[in-house]
Amino acid sequence: MDLLDIKDPSFLKKLSIKELEELSKEIRQFLISKLSVTGGHIGPNLGVVELTIALHKTFNSPKDKLIWDVGHQSYVHKILTGRAKDFDSLRQYNGLSGFPKMAESEHDVWETGHSSTSLSAAMGMAIARDIKKEKSFIVPIIGDGALTGGMALEALNHIGDEKKNMIVILNDNEMSIAPNVGALHSVLGRLRTAGKYQWAKDELEMLLKKIPAVGGKLASTAERVKDSLKYLLVSGVFFEELGFTYLGPVDGHNYEDLFDNLNYAKKTEGPILLHVLTKKGKGYDPAESDRTGNWHGTGPYKIETGDFLKPVNSPPAWSKVISETVRRIAREDERIVAITPAMPVGSKLEGFASEFPDRMFDVGIAEQHAATVAAGLATQKMKPFLAIYSTFLQRAYDQVVHDICRQNLNVFIGIDRAGLVGADGETHHGVFDIAFLRHLPNIVIMSPKDENEGQHMVYTALQYDAGPIALRFPRGNGLGVPMDETFKEIPIGSWEVLKEGHDAAILTFGTTIPMAMEAAARLEKQGSSVKVINARFIKPLDNKLLTSILQLNIPILTIEEAVLQGGFGSAVLEFVHDNGFHDTEICRMGIPDQFIEHGSVKILWEEIGLTTEEVVKKINTMVIKKQKRA
Amino acid sequence: MDLLDIKDPSFLKKLSIKELEELSKEIRQFLISKLSVTGGHIGPNLGVVELTIALHKTFNSPKDKLIWDVGHQSYVHKILTGRAKDFDSLRQYNGLSGFPKMAESEHDVWETGHSSTSLSAAMGMAIARDIKKEKSFIVPIIGDGALTGGMALEALNHIGDEKKNMIVILNDNEMSIAPNVGALHSVLGRLRTAGKYQWAKDELEMLLKKIPAVGGKLASTAERVKDSLKYLLVSGVFFEELGFTYLGPVDGHNYEDLFDNLNYAKKTEGPILLHVLTKKGKGYDPAESDRTGNWHGTGPYKIETGDFLKPVNSPPAWSKVISETVRRIAREDERIVAITPAMPVGSKLEGFASEFPDRMFDVGIAEQHAATVAAGLATQKMKPFLAIYSTFLQRAYDQVVHDICRQNLNVFIGIDRAGLVGADGETHHGVFDIAFLRHLPNIVIMSPKDENEGQHMVYTALQYDAGPIALRFPRGNGLGVPMDETFKEIPIGSWEVLKEGHDAAILTFGTTIPMAMEAAARLEKQGSSVKVINARFIKPLDNKLLTSILQLNIPILTIEEAVLQGGFGSAVLEFVHDNGFHDTEICRMGIPDQFIEHGSVKILWEEIGLTTEEVVKKINTMVIKKQKRA
Repeated sequence: MDLLDIKDPSFLKKLSIKELEELSKEIRQFLISKLSVTGGHIGPNLGVVELTIALHKTFNSPKDKLIWDVGHQSYVHKILTGRAKDFDSLRQYNGLSGFPKMAESEHDVWETGHSSTSLSAAMGMAIARDIKKEKSFIVPIIGDGALTGGMALEALNHIGDEKKNMIVILNDNEMSIAPNVGALHSVLGRLRTAGKYQWAKDELEMLLKKIPAVGGKLASTAERVKDSLKYLLVSGVFFEELGFTYLGPVDGHNYEDLFDNLNYAKKTEGPILLHVLTKKGKGYDPAESDRTGNWHGTGPYKIETGDFLKPVNSPPAWSKVISETVRRIAREDERIVAITPAMPVGSKLEGFASEFPDRMFDVGIAEQHAATVAAGLATQKMKPFLAIYSTFLQRAYDQVVHDICRQNLNVFIGIDRAGLVGADGETHHGVFDIAFLRHLPNIVIMSPKDENEGQHMVYTALQYDAGPIALRFPRGNGLGVPMDETFKEIPIGSWEVLKEGHDAAILTFGTTIPMAMEAAARLEKQGSSVKVINARFIKPLDNKLLTSILQLNIPILTIEEAVLQGGFGSAVLEFVHDNGFHDTEICRMGIPDQFIEHGSVKILWEEIGLTTEEVVKKINTMVIKKQKRA
Repeated sequence: MDLLDIKDPSFLKKLSIKELEELSKEIRQFLISKLSVTGGHIGPNLGVVELTIALHKTFNSPKDKLIWDVGHQSYVHKILTGRAKDFDSLRQYNGLSGFPKMAESEHDVWETGHSSTSLSAAMGMAIARDIKKEKSFIVPIIGDGALTGGMALEALNHIGDEKKNMIVILNDNEMSIAPNVGALHSVLGRLRTAGKYQWAKDELEMLLKKIPAVGGKLASTAERVKDSLKYLLVSGVFFEELGFTYLGPVDGHNYEDLFDNLNYAKKTEGPILLHVLTKKGKGYDPAESDRTGNWHGTGPYKIETGDFLKPVNSPPAWSKVISETVRRIAREDERIVAITPAMPVGSKLEGFASEFPDRMFDVGIAEQHAATVAAGLATQKMKPFLAIYSTFLQRAYDQVVHDICRQNLNVFIGIDRAGLVGADGETHHGVFDIAFLRHLPNIVIMSPKDENEGQHMVYTALQYDAGPIALRFPRGNGLGVPMDETFKEIPIGSWEVLKEGHDAAILTFGTTIPMAMEAAARLEKQGSSVKVINARFIKPLDNKLLTSILQLNIPILTIEEAVLQGGFGSAVLEFVHDNGFHDTEICRMGIPDQFIEHGSVKILWEEIGLTTEEVVKKINTMVIKKQKRA
C-alpha cells in the first residue's frame, strides 16, 4: 500500500498478520530511505515497527491514549496517523517534529523530548478517566533506559500502589542512547533469559505436588516456599513487588506474540507491565549491528554502506574538545572523575573512559543522582567533572542548588549543548541555563569564545578550588582556531576586549561573538566606533571592566544565545542600577519569552532576530538617539 | 552521665549494653525537655536514639562516614559529637542548626535538608574512597519515606550495579512526615511481617533436600525452584534484585539485635541494605501515639500533657486559607484534583482529602512525579491543584519547564512557604522560586497582599484557562483581615495602587507590603509623598500601570522577599530598558547573593536589610539625589 494514503490507523483493524508483516517492511523501507536524507532517530524507530502497528491495531487511538516516553520513537506512529507525507521535512524548520506534537495530530496526546515522563503523565490521565467515569486504555510506552530515571521510578511506586488500570509497555531494546547501565538493567536481563510467562506453569505445579506434606514448624515454611514459587510463575518479581502484573517477555517483532499478550493485558485489571523485547535498528544492518549508540540518532547517511555523510575536515566537536582536555589534565591529576547521565557518546567521553575506566561513571538516565554523586566526590577532595547537556541539567536543578552550590563544593559542570540545538527543537534547546543558574550563590559561570579558550577554561575550572564552576558550550563544532599547546589559567571574572571603540559597546560571549564582530566592522565602515567585549564570565561579571565602560557613558548592547529574562543582559542591568549608572542606555538581544521550535540554528536565529543586521540596527538607533540628545 | 561532658563518640566503645540503655534514657529526657522549649523535630529523633548510639559505637566517625538523609533526625548524633551544650539555641539565629552542618562538626560529612540525597552522596564518597584506596565504612541512613524519592531510587539502581561497599541503613518508621504511601511502602510492610533474615535457614535447607531429584525438563525447573528459594532466605527480594544484600528486619530499639546486624554488615562485601524498624516518638507518649504527623516537627509544647503552646486567636494559617478555598470551589467544580508530595498535613489538605477522597492524591516524596501527574490531568481538561512548598518545587523544575509550561497546561501551582521560612534555615527558604520560574514562557505568577486577596487569587487561578498559573504565599499565618464571602476574579497582570504619591514609588508584593506602607507613612511625615503599589502579578507585569508610573519620572524602589538576581526587581529593570525609560533611577531590595542561615524571619530580615528604616533611607537618598539634579 502507499503509506501516503494512510489517514488514520483504523485501516489496520482489517489487516491479516501477513498483511501487517508486509506493511512493516514498507514502513522500514520508507524510514530507511527518508531518514537517509533528513537524518533522525533511525535506530529506535526501526525497533518499534511491529510494536507500534500492534498497538494501533489493538487499541483505539486517540480515545485510548498511547503515550510515547521520550518520543523519538514515534515516527511509525506518525506514519500510521496520517503524517507520512511530511517526512521530507522531518526535524526541519516548520516541518514535522521529531517528537510527538499535539498541534500535529489528535493522536499525539502527550508531548515529550525529555525522558521518563510517560508514567506520571499516564497516571494523571488515569485519574482523570476514573473521576470522569470514562472507559479507555492508557498505554505508556517506555524504554528500559528511561525506566531508570527517578521520576519513572516514583511513578511506578505510585501507580502500583493506587492499582489504576494501565498497560505499561516496557520497550526493552537493551540500550537507550548508549548501552544501558544499572541494576534494573540486570533485572531485565534475568527476565529476558527466564523465558516466557507461561513457560513452566504445568511443570511447577507438578513439582509443587512432590513437596511432601509436612507438619509443625515446617508447615509454615512450606507455605512460604509455595508463596515464593508464585514469584517464579509470574517471573517479574521486581515489578510484582511494586504492585504490577508482569507479562512477558514478548518478542516485539512477532505479531502473534504481541497480540496474544496485548489482548490478555486488555482483559486484566490493575496496572500491567508488558515486557516487550525489541531490537534497535531492526531490518537495517548498519543500525541493527550498532553496539555503541551511533545509530540512535543520525544525520544523513548512504543507504547502501551505512556511511554517515559528514562534512569533511570540519573543526573538532565542542564536546570532544572539552572532554579530551579533561582527559589530558586527568593524566596529571588523579582526583579528576568524570560522570555522565547516559551520554558517554554524546559527551565524547569514550576516550576518557578507555583511559580511566575506574574514574568514569555512566550512571544512566539519572541526572539528579549524577549531580549529587559529583557533590559527594567533591566532599572527599576529588575533582568531579559532571558532563551534562544544558537541557538535562534542568532536571538536576535542586541538586545544583541544595547539594552543590549550598555546600559550595568544587564540582566542575560541563554544560554541553547550550543555546539552540536545532533539529531536536523546543524540548532540547539549552536556553534556560543562565537564568536558572545565575541566581545561585557561589557558582561561577563561564562561556568560551572559541575552542582554544574552551580548553583554557577547562584547565581553569580544574585548577579552581573555591566552589562550583560551570562551563557553558554549544552543540556542534568549534571554529577551527589553532590550539595552544600550553594551558593557561583565565582569571575568574575577567572579560576580554576584542575590539576597542568609543561610540557604543557590545557585551557578548560564546556563539554570538562573531556576529558582534561582524556588526562592529560594518559599523566602523559607517563611521561608528564600537567596542566589543568577550564577556566570558557570566558570573561573576568583570566589575572593573564593566565599570570602566559605563564611565564612558556610551550605549551598551548585550547579546546572548539564552533567554532574556533573568539572563546575562539582566545581570548587566542589575549592575548598572546597583552602581549608579542608570543613565546608560542598554539594549538586550537574546531569546524572547517563548518556546522555540525545531529548525536549523541559522534559521532560528533569524526568526528571533539574532542577526548581524539587527545588531547594526540597534547600535545605530542608540548612537543616533544619544547624538540627538547631546 | 552528663551529656554536656561528651566531646566525641569515642566514649561509647567502653560502654556495656546496660550503660547504653541508661544513656538512651538520658538522651530521650534531654530531647523531650530541650525541645519542649525550642521546638524541633522531636518525633524522628526520639525514634533513632538506639540506632544512632549503635552506629557511633560500631563505626569510627568521622573516618567512617555517617550520612543522614534529610538530616532532621541528627540531634542524637549532635549530642554524641559534643553539641549537647548548644541545644538551648536549636534552630535559632546563630544557634545550633536543625540539620547537619559541616561548620559545626567534623562528624557532619554531608549537609542536608531536602530528602533522598544521602545515597547519591554516599556513592560519590565510595567512589572517592576506592580511587584513593582508602578503607572506611560509608553509612547512609535513609527513612522509608525518603526512599521513594526518585533520586534515591536512581542511586539504588547505580549502587547495586557498581557493587560498591556501602551499608545503607533503612530507618523504617512507617511514616515520613505523613503516613507513607506507595508500593514500596507495601514491600517494606511485607518484609516487616516476614520476620528475620535467619528465620528459617536451616528449615529451608531441610526442605530443599526433600525436593526429589528430577531429570529432563524438570531438572531445570528444580534449579529454578532452588533459585527462587534463595529469595526466601534473603527475604528482601526487591533489594536483592537491585544488587543489595538485604539484612533484617532489625528491632531498632534493641541493642543486641542492632550490634549483631551491624557487625555482620561490616564483614559483608558489596552494598548492604540493613532494614531497621524504629518507632517515631519512642519513649514520649504524645509523640509515640501520633498517627498523623503532628509530632514530626513541632513548636514548644507542655511536657506533661503534650499540648502545643500555640498563640491563641492567631489568624488562620496561609496553607489553610489556600487549601480550604480550593476545597470550597471544588464543591462546585468536579474537575479540581489536589496533589501533594507527602505534605497533606503541612499543606492543610486534610479537609479536602476527607471531603474528596477520590480527588486527592498524596504521591509521597516525589515532587517530579507530582508535577507531571498534574500535567497529565490537565491534558484531560481537569483542574489540578499542585500544592507544593517553594523549596521542594526546585526538584520539579524540569517538569514545570518541559511538561507544564512547554505544553501550556492549566495547572494551578500553589507555592507554599515562599520567602524565608525561619528555623529550618538555608535548605528550606523559598527564595529562588521567582528567579527559577519567571523566565519560563506561558506561566503566570502572583502573590497576594493578605489572605482575603489570597482567596480571590485561588478563585482566579481556578477560573483561568490559558495555561499554568502559580500562587506564591508565605509560611505562617495570615494578617487576620476580614474575608469576603463572594469570590472575585482578579484581572491577570493587574496591580493595585495602595497609596498615591508623587515623589517616588515603591513596587512590592506579598509579605513586604506592610513594610512599604509603614515606610511611606513615615516618609509622608518627613514631607515626601510616596506611591505604594501592590505588584501582585510578578509575571506578567502590569505594563499599563508601570508605564504610567515611569512617565512620572520619579525614582522607584522594588522590594521582594526573594533573591535579587533575576527576580521581580530585575523584571522591572528589563521593562524599563526595553521601553525607553532608562533615565529612571531604580533601587532593588531583596535577598542578596548568599545562602541565608536559620533564625526567626524577623531577625533574618534585619540581617539582610529588609527593614522599614532601610526603605526610608533608600527612598530619601533617591529623592534627594533627584532634587539635586533638578
